[in-house]
Amino acid sequence: MFHGLSAFPLTPLKEGKIDEQAFTTLLRPLVDAGVDSLGILGSTGSYAYLTVAERAQVARCAVEHAGGIPVMVSIGALRLDDILRLADDAQAAGAAGVLMAPVSYQRLTAEEVYSLYERVTRQLSVPLCVYDNPATTGFTFSDELMFAVAALPNIGSVKFGRVPEDIAQVRSRLPDNVTMGISGDWQAAPALRAGFDVWYSVIAGVFPQTALAIARSKETAQSERLEPLWALFRRYGSLRVMAAAAEMMGKVTVPALPFPLQAIQGEPREALARLIVSLELA
Amino acid sequence: MFHGLSAFPLTPLKEGKIDEQAFTTLLRPLVDAGVDSLGILGSTGSYAYLTVAERAQVARCAVEHAGGIPVMVSIGALRLDDILRLADDAQAAGAAGVLMAPVSYQRLTAEEVYSLYERVTRQLSVPLCVYDNPATTGFTFSDELMFAVAALPNIGSVKFGRVPEDIAQVRSRLPDNVTMGISGDWQAAPALRAGFDVWYSVIAGVFPQTALAIARSKETAQSERLEPLWALFRRYGSLRVMAAAAEMMGKVTVPALPFPLQAIQGEPREALARLIVSLELA
Repeated sequence: MFHGLSAFPLTPLKEGKIDEQAFTTLLRPLVDAGVDSLGILGSTGSYAYLTVAERAQVARCAVEHAGGIPVMVSIGALRLDDILRLADDAQAAGAAGVLMAPVSYQRLTAEEVYSLYERVTRQLSVPLCVYDNPATTGFTFSDELMFAVAALPNIGSVKFGRVPEDIAQVRSRLPDNVTMGISGDWQAAPALRAGFDVWYSVIAGVFPQTALAIARSKETAQSERLEPLWALFRRYGSLRVMAAAAEMMGKVTVPALPFPLQAIQGEPREALARLIVSLELA
Repeated sequence: MFHGLSAFPLTPLKEGKIDEQAFTTLLRPLVDAGVDSLGILGSTGSYAYLTVAERAQVARCAVEHAGGIPVMVSIGALRLDDILRLADDAQAAGAAGVLMAPVSYQRLTAEEVYSLYERVTRQLSVPLCVYDNPATTGFTFSDELMFAVAALPNIGSVKFGRVPEDIAQVRSRLPDNVTMGISGDWQAAPALRAGFDVWYSVIAGVFPQTALAIARSKETAQSERLEPLWALFRRYGSLRVMAAAAEMMGKVTVPALPFPLQAIQGEPREALARLIVSLELA
């Protein structure tokens, strides 16, 4: 399941509760477009802000509406007890894979992170994607640690936050069954061209056709034309930008994000509205 | 309540549940020593790792065993809904104040942080201490933002992570009723000498007499003699060091911290054991 285009939809809220109707409205065009997998409750899906019970609810709803497309569910949390419960819930819901970042409040040590992945993978019956995201976790994987974690049983993919300088060398040190995935949408086209297996995509959660055109063609020109959008992503965070897009398109109730997170407002929101038209995002 | 020595005890776990007995064992010497306040469920008290229900339980237990010493309870969380519930629970338990950091997964914007404090303080009937801790939150207050937040109603103190270059200038821009507190134990003695009002102290959570000697005398020599301990704090994190101390002293069950967090082990733990003796920590 860890190949091609993986679409990461928002998890919209309505008055502080999961808005299942809006969520399924978001899923439908992704399923119709034929993305290769759904990345549910990723950073874009606000997983860190939701309770264990809410996350189980979202996982069940996603699998039910996925039309057979494999669903990956994030199980990241600060505390192992919660992670194991989330893993059980995701597997019971029918997830085909799980995603986990070394979420931290106290910045974790390399030993703690390794122990965490070891403990969690031991309990899994579906493959896990290692989620490297220093911007949200405050934890940076060393190459050594990443390779050690990737060699654990039940690891299926690594979601890299940036393209390594020597892709072939990284590839050669990963087990054969572990795919390389890229996040940070503006890096996707060059990463796929350079041999990455999968794009863990934020934009695909709202604009699946636009993302599929890039993922299938791997043409950097297709991505470069979206540079004004990528600039908004880098400046404000892709979550705040895509939430604004979904809000303006009437797909979710305003505000869709858990307070204090806020979709972009004012001038950048107006710029986004213009980009949706001028870039023919779909 | 935001003056003098505020002691931050651990929140010990036993088989993944709050260990109330060990917690009250930790509180007793702090109360007997006469610290000026108890900082419950701070970073040292693992607040970010505990559920809303667990935190309410700890707040009630603390107030019950505080012997009249004012109790400050951390209400930090990623989501406003949880923060408001935690604030209600803390106040219902009898907390005299609350502590809140801009906890983040998605790094918050200045506007989001200001809105968060505005929304929370509006709901409080006890004063709030603003908790500046970029290492755990990933958020760095600008001076402008800190002064704007400090001017909100119900702000009683700021817990600074480092000593500002120009203390008098910072003091002059804070409202008169807002005290200046220092965290990072190795900085406490010079900060108190330079006019800080309160030391939010990790070491006081296990060694209250040692901390009181520094807080009352404000003698930097008293702090400098602990430099080998401060070096462990800076290298491994004060939480991992104090958890090991409490474990070795038989005050808490091993492991006391929520997995994947681990008390220091091996050589540094042995070094700590020697320091407890040689530095006559008590």
